[in-house]
Amino acid sequence: MFIQINRDYDNKYIYQQIYESMKQQILQRVLKVNEKLPSKRQLATQLQVSVNSVTLAYEQLLVEGYIYTIERSGYFVEDIRLFEVDHAIQHTLPEDLKEQVVHKGGWLSLSHMSNNSRMFPFKSWLKHQTEAIELFAKELCELSEAQGPYILRKNIASLIQSTRGVKCEPEQIIVHSTTLGLLEQFLLLQAKDTVIALENPGYARYDQLLKRHQFPVDYVPLDKYGVDIEALRKGESQFLLTTPSHQFPTGKIMPISRRVELLNWALEKENRYIIEDDYDSEFKYKTDNIPSLQSLDYNSRVIYLGTFSKTLLPGMRISYMVLPIKLLREYKAYFNSLIQPANILAMYTLNQFIETGAYQKHVRKMNLMYEQLRTELIKQLMNRFGDNIEIVNIPAGLHFLVKVHTKKSYDQIEQALTKQKLELYTICRFLLQEDAYYLRNRYLIVGFANIDLADIDEALNRFEQALFH
Amino acid sequence: MFIQINRDYDNKYIYQQIYESMKQQILQRVLKVNEKLPSKRQLATQLQVSVNSVTLAYEQLLVEGYIYTIERSGYFVEDIRLFEVDHAIQHTLPEDLKEQVVHKGGWLSLSHMSNNSRMFPFKSWLKHQTEAIELFAKELCELSEAQGPYILRKNIASLIQSTRGVKCEPEQIIVHSTTLGLLEQFLLLQAKDTVIALENPGYARYDQLLKRHQFPVDYVPLDKYGVDIEALRKGESQFLLTTPSHQFPTGKIMPISRRVELLNWALEKENRYIIEDDYDSEFKYKTDNIPSLQSLDYNSRVIYLGTFSKTLLPGMRISYMVLPIKLLREYKAYFNSLIQPANILAMYTLNQFIETGAYQKHVRKMNLMYEQLRTELIKQLMNRFGDNIEIVNIPAGLHFLVKVHTKKSYDQIEQALTKQKLELYTICRFLLQEDAYYLRNRYLIVGFANIDLADIDEALNRFEQALFH
Repeated sequence: MFIQINRDYDNKYIYQQIYESMKQQILQRVLKVNEKLPSKRQLATQLQVSVNSVTLAYEQLLVEGYIYTIERSGYFVEDIRLFEVDHAIQHTLPEDLKEQVVHKGGWLSLSHMSNNSRMFPFKSWLKHQTEAIELFAKELCELSEAQGPYILRKNIASLIQSTRGVKCEPEQIIVHSTTLGLLEQFLLLQAKDTVIALENPGYARYDQLLKRHQFPVDYVPLDKYGVDIEALRKGESQFLLTTPSHQFPTGKIMPISRRVELLNWALEKENRYIIEDDYDSEFKYKTDNIPSLQSLDYNSRVIYLGTFSKTLLPGMRISYMVLPIKLLREYKAYFNSLIQPANILAMYTLNQFIETGAYQKHVRKMNLMYEQLRTELIKQLMNRFGDNIEIVNIPAGLHFLVKVHTKKSYDQIEQALTKQKLELYTICRFLLQEDAYYLRNRYLIVGFANIDLADIDEALNRFEQALFH
Repeated sequence: MFIQINRDYDNKYIYQQIYESMKQQILQRVLKVNEKLPSKRQLATQLQVSVNSVTLAYEQLLVEGYIYTIERSGYFVEDIRLFEVDHAIQHTLPEDLKEQVVHKGGWLSLSHMSNNSRMFPFKSWLKHQTEAIELFAKELCELSEAQGPYILRKNIASLIQSTRGVKCEPEQIIVHSTTLGLLEQFLLLQAKDTVIALENPGYARYDQLLKRHQFPVDYVPLDKYGVDIEALRKGESQFLLTTPSHQFPTGKIMPISRRVELLNWALEKENRYIIEDDYDSEFKYKTDNIPSLQSLDYNSRVIYLGTFSKTLLPGMRISYMVLPIKLLREYKAYFNSLIQPANILAMYTLNQFIETGAYQKHVRKMNLMYEQLRTELIKQLMNRFGDNIEIVNIPAGLHFLVKVHTKKSYDQIEQALTKQKLELYTICRFLLQEDAYYLRNRYLIVGFANIDLADIDEALNRFEQALFH
C-alpha cells in the first residue's frame, strides 16, 4: 500500500493522512473489496510511523464503515459501491446568484421600515439581560412553552390591557418570531377556499403570504374611514385583515362608526373574524393612543396581532397574537407540538424590560423623539415644497403619506431616489391591485424613524433633486 | 350632560374621565346622534374643571370619531350604530384551557432534549454580544438580509467546511429560527402529492409537520446500517429525510456503503433529493467526527440541515439549511420577500462567537464534558443493571438507546418515570408507524446532556424504581 506521509509541522496529523489516503484508495477501488489490509504493526513499520497513528486511522475507517474487522484475522476492505456521478451538474455558483454586498454608506433614509439606531437603549437592554440570566438560569437552558414563557405572556397581557385596552388571558397569547409566521399558522387551520379580505393599498407581504398558500383574496378599497364596508359586503370574505389604528400605508385612523360597522359585520356569519394588525399603534402624537379594535369587541371576533419590531428593533423578532377562546382551542389541538421560534434570551430579557417598566419608559421617550422629528420634517417639507406637495397629516405611527405634484412617473421617481441615495418608497409597492386614483397621482410613504434632525435638510435636498428636477 | 368627576389623586386624569363618560353615553345613545354638545367653556363651568381638560377630552373624542365639529357651530355627536352582541359567547377561559405552571423542582433529567444549564458560557456570550453591538451598531437596527447576515453565513460556511466537510458558498445558506421552519419553507415549494420518506423510528415533529401539510409519507424502517435501502426503493419517495451521523433516536452511524447507495439512489431520478439533518453531529467520542453525507455528494443532491440548539442553547433558535444551487434559485424566486425570523442580536453575537474561535472552543469543552458524563453513566448503568439492560453503545451525540428487560408496558414505564420525577423518554413517541420489534421490546432514549455527575446515582435509583419495581 502506497501512502505518502508529510511530516511538516503545519500539516494534518499523521493518522489523518493515513485515513484520508486509505479512504480514497478504497472509494476508488485501488484497494479491492474484501482485500486484507496490513496489520497495524506492519503498516507502522512500512510507513515509519507509530502504531498509535495507524490504530487511530483504522479506528476512524472502521467507525465510518470503510473497513471491517474479523477477530484474530485482521482488517478487510468493505464492499462499497462506486459513486455515480452526474457530470452535467454545475458546481460553481452562477453570477446571478452571487450576492452583492450593498454598502449603504452615504445614504439617508426616509423609509418607513427602519428605526433610529442610536436610540436603542443597548445598555439598559444588557442590564435586563443580565437580570434575566440570573433569574431564569434554568428556564434559559430549556425549550420554553410552545406559546412562549407564561411569565412573558402574563406581562404582555397586562401591558396591552393598559396601553391598548386588549382584554385577554396569558393563555390566549401566542408569542412568535414574526407576525407573518403567526398569520401563516392561523391560515394552516383554515380551509383552502377561505376568502380573505385585504386592505388596498396595504401590506404587500401579507398578500405574498396569501398567494403562497393560494388563498383567494378580496382586495377591499379604502374610503375616508378606512376599509370600505360596502365593498367588503360585496365579497365573500370570512376574514378581514385590517390596520385600524394607523392604516398601512395611508395612515388613516379608523373612526368608531366604521369600527362598529366592521364588528357587526363579523357577527353576521359564523366563523367570521377580523384580524387586527396593530403594528405601530404605540406611537401617537397630540392626543392619547387610539384604543384597539379588540378592546371594542364584545363577541370574540377579533384576532389581535402585535409586535415589538417598531418599539425595540426591527430584528428583535418577537411578535404575538391574541386568539379568541374558540380559536385558541383549535390552535392548541393543531400546534401543541410546535417549538417556540423566538430566541429565549430575548424573550426573558423582554420580560424583565416590561416588568421593570423600562419598556414603557423607552416607548415614551421614543414617542417624544419621533414627535419632534415628525414636526420638524413636516415643517421643512411645507416650507420648501408647500405648493407642490400635500401632506396627509395624521399624527400617529412612524410614517405619513405625501402627495407630490410632479410630472415624473413612479418608475422615474424610484430611479431618481436611488440615484440620490435617499431611501424612500412610493405607494406603488403597496398597491395590491391596480388603483386608478393612486396611479394617476403620486404618493410617497415618508418615514421619520431613521433620520437625524441634522440630516433632514440634506435629505430634502435629495428629495427635491429626485422629485422636481 | 351628567358626568361624575372623581378628584382623588390616584384616579384617572380629569380629561380622561370626561372622555370615558361621554364615550359611553354616545355608544349607548344617551347622547343622541347629531346632538349638539355644550361648548368647552360651558362644560368646564358646569363640571368645575379647567377648559383645558374639556379640550383634551373633545380632541380625543374627535380623533376617534365619536364627535364631529362644524366650524363656528360647535361639536356634535357622530352617527354610530349600536353594537350587536352575541350573548352566547363565553368570555372566561374554560378550565381545560388554563395552563398549569409545572414546577420541575426535585426532578432529574435523562432527557435527550435539554442541555446542561450551568455549562453555557453566558459570560463569554455577553462579551461577544458587546463586541457585536460595537461592530454592527447600524446593522443591528435594520432588518438583515432575508437569508441572514452575509457575514454570519460566511462564517458558518467555513465552520461547517472544516468540521463537517460541507461544501458550499455563503449564498447557499439560509439561516432561520428553526429547522422545522426551514423544512416547512422547502415543502411549500413542492407539489402537494410529493412523497417524502421518513426514518422509522424517527423524529416525530417532522412527521407532524408533513401531516399538517398533508404530504404523503413513506415510513422507511431501519436495518443495521440505518435507512433500509430496499424498503426505500419499494416506495415512490422524491425526498428522504435522514440523520446519517447519528440516527435519531437509535444512534446508528450510517456506514459509507449505505451512504453511497443512498447518494446513487438520489441520482436515479430527476429532482430526487436527500435531506440530511445533522442535528447533533458536533459530539463524537473516541474517534474523530463522521463527515457529513453532503461532503460525499458530487451531484448536488443533498440538502444539509444544521442547528446551534445542541451546541449552544435549545432556545437559541438559530438553524440553517444549505441548498444545492438548482434549488437555491427556486427558493429565492419564492422567498425573496421573507423577513429573517432569527433574533438579530443573537445572529451577530453568534457571528463573533464563531469568528473569534470561542464557539469551537466551547464545543470542544462540551465534548469532553459530555464524554465524561456518558462514560460514567454507562459504567454505573452496567454495574447496577448489567443483566437486565443492553446498552446500544455508539459513542456519538447526546443520547444512547437502552434496551430494558422488564415486564412493564411502555405506558407503565412512562407513568412510573413521572412518579419518580425522572425525565426520560421511551422509543414509543418516535415510532411514526407501528413496529413489531420495538413494541415487543422496551427501549429507552437515555440522554446525558442535562445530568450532573453527582446526580447520576440518584437518577439511577429512580430508574430502578420505575423500571424494575
